[in-house]
Amino acid sequence: MNSFGRIFRISIFGESHGESVGISIDGCPAGLPLTMEDFLVDLERRRGGNQKGTTPRKEDDLPIFKSGIFNGKSTGAPITILFENKNTRSTDYEKQRAVPRPGHADFVATEKFGGHEDYRGGGHFSGRLTVALVAAGVVSKKILRSFNGVEVKGSILEIGGEPDLEKGLQRAIDAKDSIGGIVECRVTGLPVGVGEPFFDSVESQISHAVLSIPAIRGIEFGTGFAAARMFGSEHNDAIENTDGKTKTNHAGGIVGGITNGNEVVFRVAVKPTSSTPKEQETLNRATGLMEPFSVKGRHDLCIALRVPVVLEAVTAIVLADLLMLEQRIPRIAGR
Amino acid sequence: MNSFGRIFRISIFGESHGESVGISIDGCPAGLPLTMEDFLVDLERRRGGNQKGTTPRKEDDLPIFKSGIFNGKSTGAPITILFENKNTRSTDYEKQRAVPRPGHADFVATEKFGGHEDYRGGGHFSGRLTVALVAAGVVSKKILRSFNGVEVKGSILEIGGEPDLEKGLQRAIDAKDSIGGIVECRVTGLPVGVGEPFFDSVESQISHAVLSIPAIRGIEFGTGFAAARMFGSEHNDAIENTDGKTKTNHAGGIVGGITNGNEVVFRVAVKPTSSTPKEQETLNRATGLMEPFSVKGRHDLCIALRVPVVLEAVTAIVLADLLMLEQRIPRIAGR
Amino acid sequence: MNSFGRIFRISIFGESHGESVGISIDGCPAGLPLTMEDFLVDLERRRGGNQKGTTPRKEDDLPIFKSGIFNGKSTGAPITILFENKNTRSTDYEKQRAVPRPGHADFVATEKFGGHEDYRGGGHFSGRLTVALVAAGVVSKKILRSFNGVEVKGSILEIGGEPDLEKGLQRAIDAKDSIGGIVECRVTGLPVGVGEPFFDSVESQISHAVLSIPAIRGIEFGTGFAAARMFGSEHNDAIENTDGKTKTNHAGGIVGGITNGNEVVFRVAVKPTSSTPKEQETLNRATGLMEPFSVKGRHDLCIALRVPVVLEAVTAIVLADLLMLEQRIPRIAGR
Amino acid sequence: MNSFGRIFRISIFGESHGESVGISIDGCPAGLPLTMEDFLVDLERRRGGNQKGTTPRKEDDLPIFKSGIFNGKSTGAPITILFENKNTRSTDYEKQRAVPRPGHADFVATEKFGGHEDYRGGGHFSGRLTVALVAAGVVSKKILRSFNGVEVKGSILEIGGEPDLEKGLQRAIDAKDSIGGIVECRVTGLPVGVGEPFFDSVESQISHAVLSIPAIRGIEFGTGFAAARMFGSEHNDAIENTDGKTKTNHAGGIVGGITNGNEVVFRVAVKPTSSTPKEQETLNRATGLMEPFSVKGRHDLCIALRVPVVLEAVTAIVLADLLMLEQRIPRIAGR
Repeated sequence: MNSFGRIFRISIFGESHGESVGISIDGCPAGLPLTMEDFLVDLERRRGGNQKGTTPRKEDDLPIFKSGIFNGKSTGAPITILFENKNTRSTDYEKQRAVPRPGHADFVATEKFGGHEDYRGGGHFSGRLTVALVAAGVVSKKILRSFNGVEVKGSILEIGGEPDLEKGLQRAIDAKDSIGGIVECRVTGLPVGVGEPFFDSVESQISHAVLSIPAIRGIEFGTGFAAARMFGSEHNDAIENTDGKTKTNHAGGIVGGITNGNEVVFRVAVKPTSSTPKEQETLNRATGLMEPFSVKGRHDLCIALRVPVVLEAVTAIVLADLLMLEQRIPRIAGR
Repeated sequence: MNSFGRIFRISIFGESHGESVGISIDGCPAGLPLTMEDFLVDLERRRGGNQKGTTPRKEDDLPIFKSGIFNGKSTGAPITILFENKNTRSTDYEKQRAVPRPGHADFVATEKFGGHEDYRGGGHFSGRLTVALVAAGVVSKKILRSFNGVEVKGSILEIGGEPDLEKGLQRAIDAKDSIGGIVECRVTGLPVGVGEPFFDSVESQISHAVLSIPAIRGIEFGTGFAAARMFGSEHNDAIENTDGKTKTNHAGGIVGGITNGNEVVFRVAVKPTSSTPKEQETLNRATGLMEPFSVKGRHDLCIALRVPVVLEAVTAIVLADLLMLEQRIPRIAGR
Repeated sequence: MNSFGRIFRISIFGESHGESVGISIDGCPAGLPLTMEDFLVDLERRRGGNQKGTTPRKEDDLPIFKSGIFNGKSTGAPITILFENKNTRSTDYEKQRAVPRPGHADFVATEKFGGHEDYRGGGHFSGRLTVALVAAGVVSKKILRSFNGVEVKGSILEIGGEPDLEKGLQRAIDAKDSIGGIVECRVTGLPVGVGEPFFDSVESQISHAVLSIPAIRGIEFGTGFAAARMFGSEHNDAIENTDGKTKTNHAGGIVGGITNGNEVVFRVAVKPTSSTPKEQETLNRATGLMEPFSVKGRHDLCIALRVPVVLEAVTAIVLADLLMLEQRIPRIAGR
Repeated sequence: MNSFGRIFRISIFGESHGESVGISIDGCPAGLPLTMEDFLVDLERRRGGNQKGTTPRKEDDLPIFKSGIFNGKSTGAPITILFENKNTRSTDYEKQRAVPRPGHADFVATEKFGGHEDYRGGGHFSGRLTVALVAAGVVSKKILRSFNGVEVKGSILEIGGEPDLEKGLQRAIDAKDSIGGIVECRVTGLPVGVGEPFFDSVESQISHAVLSIPAIRGIEFGTGFAAARMFGSEHNDAIENTDGKTKTNHAGGIVGGITNGNEVVFRVAVKPTSSTPKEQETLNRATGLMEPFSVKGRHDLCIALRVPVVLEAVTAIVLADLLMLEQRIPRIAGR
C-alpha cells in the first residue's frame, strides 16, 4: 500500500509530526555514487526557499542515510533515508480533533483508522511525506542520467490560470485565499520501447504514481483533454524516420502505452492549498453541527509551487523501474 | 504486466486477429451467480450496436466460460472467459508491415518485440482486447452491486467538443475524419474509507487502470483541471454531517486518496480514432522515407462511443479490489 | 493467488472435471520458437505412459494455443495454453459430496468456499492442474536452454524407501496400498549471482513454487536435513577458484540465497497418493459420524512417479524469472 | 526483493556493520497497543542471553520506533523500527576482503554487486538482520493472538543429532567446531480455511519466508520426509468431526495448501555456523590460489539456538498476511 514499483521499489513511511518520515529504496544498482550534496538542491526546491507563496517553516531537511550506502556508493542493498521532524507544534492540532479540516484527510482518516491515526498535521496523509519522495527522486534521476542520459524536468505552467506566476500569486494574496496551478513534466532521452502492454503502460504507471501525490486532481498526456476535440488527421503524429521521430508530438511521446522515441510530456492539475486564510465552515463531530472554521498558523498559499520537484521524483521512480524491466539499466554501475 | 489488482486480480491475453482474446479473474467470491445473460448487455454496449459512428464488423462476441463457474455460480477458483476471433481478414495487414500506421502501436511494437509481434490489426495492442475487460467488468459490477450496493455508470459528455452527440458525429462525417470525445464515470454507494494511503489511493488505482485503456489521453477527478484555477475557499467541500456528506463535491468523492462518502466522479479524454478516412503520411521502413497513407476497410469514426462500458469495467475492477482490501466484500456470497 | 513470478509470470486456472485447465504465461521473450512438438515429451512424462503405478486414464493431453504465439514463435504478449478435460465421469463424485475423502482437499475446500467449489475430482485442487504447469515448464526450460545453457533435470531417488523403484512399487502392490517417494532436481549451467537477498533467495523462490505442487511435504537443499547433524568444518564448501567452483557441494549450489556457480541440487518428499485401495474411515457430514470409506475407480499407486517433470517445470519457471531479474535473459530472442 | 507479504507487508533493510538494521511493516491494523516491553523477551531470546553456544557480543538491541505508533498504539500507517549497530569492529573485515569466508555469502555478494557490497560482517547478508524480523514477529504474533487466539511456538528438537541439547553443544565444544540443529514450529488456534489454492498455499508461503532466514537448509510439514516411506492408509488423517479434527496429524494441519483446523507443525534444518573455530581452506582472490583460513573473533557455535524466535517471527508474518486475506483480522483493533 505504501510501496511502489516492481524491480526498483520504494516503501514510504512516517507522519508529519511524528519522529520522522523516510523511504526505503530497493533495487538501486550497486556502485552508484551518492552523497549528501546530491540531495540538497532538490530538497531546497521542495522547501520553496524564500519563494513567495510557500511557508517559511524551517524544516532543515537533511537526509540521514541509514542503510545501503557504503564508501559513498550504493551497495545494491536497500537504501533507507530518514528525515527527522523538528519544530513541530502538535498542541495546535490536539485541540481541534473534533473538527475535521475541510479539504484535508482528517475526516476520512478517522473513519478508516477508527480514530487511531496520528492526526497531528495530517499525520501520514501530510504533504510532509513528499520530502521522502524527493529523496528517492534524487536517486532515481541520478540512475536515469547515469545509465540512460534521461532527464526529467518539472515546471509550473500557470498559477490560478495565469502563466505569469507572480500575477497568479498576487491574485491569491489580494483575495486572502489559496490558489491552484498546473505543472508540466518533460522527459528527454528515453529510447523507443519503454513500457509494457496494458496495465504497465507508461501512462498507467506514471498516472498511478502521480495521483498519489497529495493535491493532484488530474493528469493529461500530450495534447490531453484537447485531443477530445481534435480530428484524427490533426491528432495523429506522422512518423518521419526509423528512430521514431514524429513531425508533431500530440501523443506526448507515448503510443500504445510504449515510448516512441520522442519527448514524453504530461501535465497535472494541482488543487488550491486546503488550508486557506479565508474563513470556511465544517462539521463539529462533538455537536454534529456545522460551524465556522479558521486555519491556524501559516501555510502555503499555493502548493503547486512545490510540485515540480515532486513530480520529477515520482516520474523518475516510475521510469527507473520501467527501464530496469526493459533491461536498459544494469544491475551494477560501471559495467 | 498484463495483470492488475492485488486480491481481485485479472490477467488479460489475446490478439486482435489471433485465435482468441480472454481474461482470467482471480479472487471472485464463491457463490456469485453468473450466466451468459449477465454479459450480453455490456458486450452489446461495447460493440456499439447499430449506433452511428461505430464499425459494423459483426463480432458475435459471446463469452466462453473455461473455468471457475460451476452450476451457474462462481466457485472461488479463477474464472477464465474466452472470446473467439471471427471474420478477421488478416491479409489486409500482411501487405503493409513496412508501413506503420500513424497513431497506432505498430512502430513501437516492432521495436519492442523485434518484429515478432502479431502485427495483424494491432495484435495485442488492439482495442479488441477491451472485450475481455468488459467481461471482467460484468463480474466486478455484479460483485459491487451484490455486496455493496455500489453502481458504476459511464456516459459520454461530449463528442468533438459538442454535448449534442449527433452534432459531434456529424462534424466528423462532414469532415470525412475521425473525432475524439470526453467520457464521464460516476460511482454511487461507496462507503467512507475505501482506498489506501499513498500509492493505492483511489485516484492512483483508477488512473492506473483507466490509462491502460487504448486511446485515453487524460483523467481528472471532481473539478479536475478546473481546480487549478480555483481559490481554496471555492474548492474545499464543507462537511455537513457525520456520514461525510459534503455541500459541494469538487473533490469528486475522494479526499487524501480515500472515499469520503460522496459520489465518486471522474472524466477521461478519448483521442480521435487513429484510423481516419483522411489521407495521412507515415514512414515506409523499406524506403526509409515518408509516403502518403490511406486506411483500408471500415473503422469507428469515434472510439469514445465505445468507452463508457469499458470505463465502467476497469473502474469496477479497481473498486472490487479495494473493497476486498477494506474487507467490505466477503469471500463467500450468501454469508 | 493463482499467479506466480515477478517478471516472468504465470497464472493457472481450471478444474479437474470442468471445461478445461490452462495457464497464461506473461513475460516470455519475443521470438522463441514454440510448436506442439516441444510439449509432447514432457506431457507424456507427466501422464506416466504405461508405467507401472500410474493411472491408465487416457487424457490425450494436447496443448491448445490460445494467444501469444504467431508464425510458430512467441510474440512477447501473454501465451495462453488450454487443455480440455475429456473422459471425466463426474457422477462418481456427486453422490459422495457428504463424505470428504481422507488426505484430499474436499473438506477444506467446502469450508473455505462455502460449498460452491467444483468438488468433482478435487476440482481446482486436483493434480490435474499440473498439466498446465508442465506446459509452462516446457516454455521455461526452452528459455533457460536457449539463453543460458541451463538444464533442469528431475529424477526419482526412492519409492517407499527403496532406491530400486520396481521394488518400491511392488511393496505397494503387495500391500494393496499407495506409497510415497523422494524426487531430486539438479540444475546445471547457472552463473554465479542468481537470486536476490532475503525474500527472493533462490531457496525461497524454489520452495514457494515447489510447495504449491500437490502432495509435496518437504524440501531440502544440498545436504539438507543431514546438515543439522554436521560440523561446520564438514559442511562448509571450500572455494577452489574464481569461478566459484567448490571442492564439495553441501550447499547445493546456493550460498546466502544466491547461486555460487555450482550445480543446484534439492530434493522433495512426496506423500503417498491419498486415494489408496485400502479401506479407510472418514467423516460423513450428513450423519456427523465417521464411517468406512473406499476409493472408487483407478488411481495412481505412487504419485511421486509423475513428480519429476512437474518439479522441473516449477523450478524452470522460478529460474526464468530470477534470470530475467538478473538480466541474463534478453527481452527478445535472437538479440 | 527485500519485501514480503501481500496485505501485511514487511520491508527489511540494513547491514551488519552499517548505521543500522530495520524494518517497515505495512498493513498493521490500527489501534494495536505496542510498547517497548512487547519486544524485550523475543529480542533477548534471539540474542541467546548467556546461553552456552551463542556469541557474547553485547548488542543492546533496543527497538527505535520511527513511524506508525502514536500514543502507544499502531496508527494504521507503516510501522518502522530501527536497531542501531554498536560495538562493531569493522577493521577485522577490511583486511580480509580478498579471502571470501567459506560458507558465507562473501564470494557471491562480490560477484553479484561488483565489489560494491558492504562486506563488513556479511553486510546485508548477515544474520544480524534477523533482529528486524524478530521485531516484525513481535507485532505479528500480537496481531494473531489479539484477533485470532493463534499462538506460534518454536523450539529446538535436536543439536548435532542429539535431542539433549547440552550434549549436542558439548560435542561441538569438544570437537572445537560449530554444529547444526533441527528446530520445530507449532501453531495452534488457526481456523479451517486459511491459505490460498496453489501458489499461496500455507506451505508455499511459510516455506518462502522460512527459507529466507540465513542458515536454513530445508523444511518439512507434518511427517515430512518420513511421508515418502509411508503407505497412503498410514499417512491419511481420518477426519473425525465437522470441526475438521483428525485422528492423527500427519498432514501437519494443512491439506490442499489450506489449514484443516488441526495444529500446524513443521520443522527446519539449520546448518552449522559457517564461522567455525576449525581451520579451513578457501580461495585467495589476490593469488587465485587456495590457502588456509582461520576465523577471527568469537562466533556462535550453534546458530540453531537463535532460530526458534526467528522462525516464530516469519511464521507469524506469513500467517498475519494470510489471515488478513481471509478477512479474519479486521482493519481496526477494537472493532
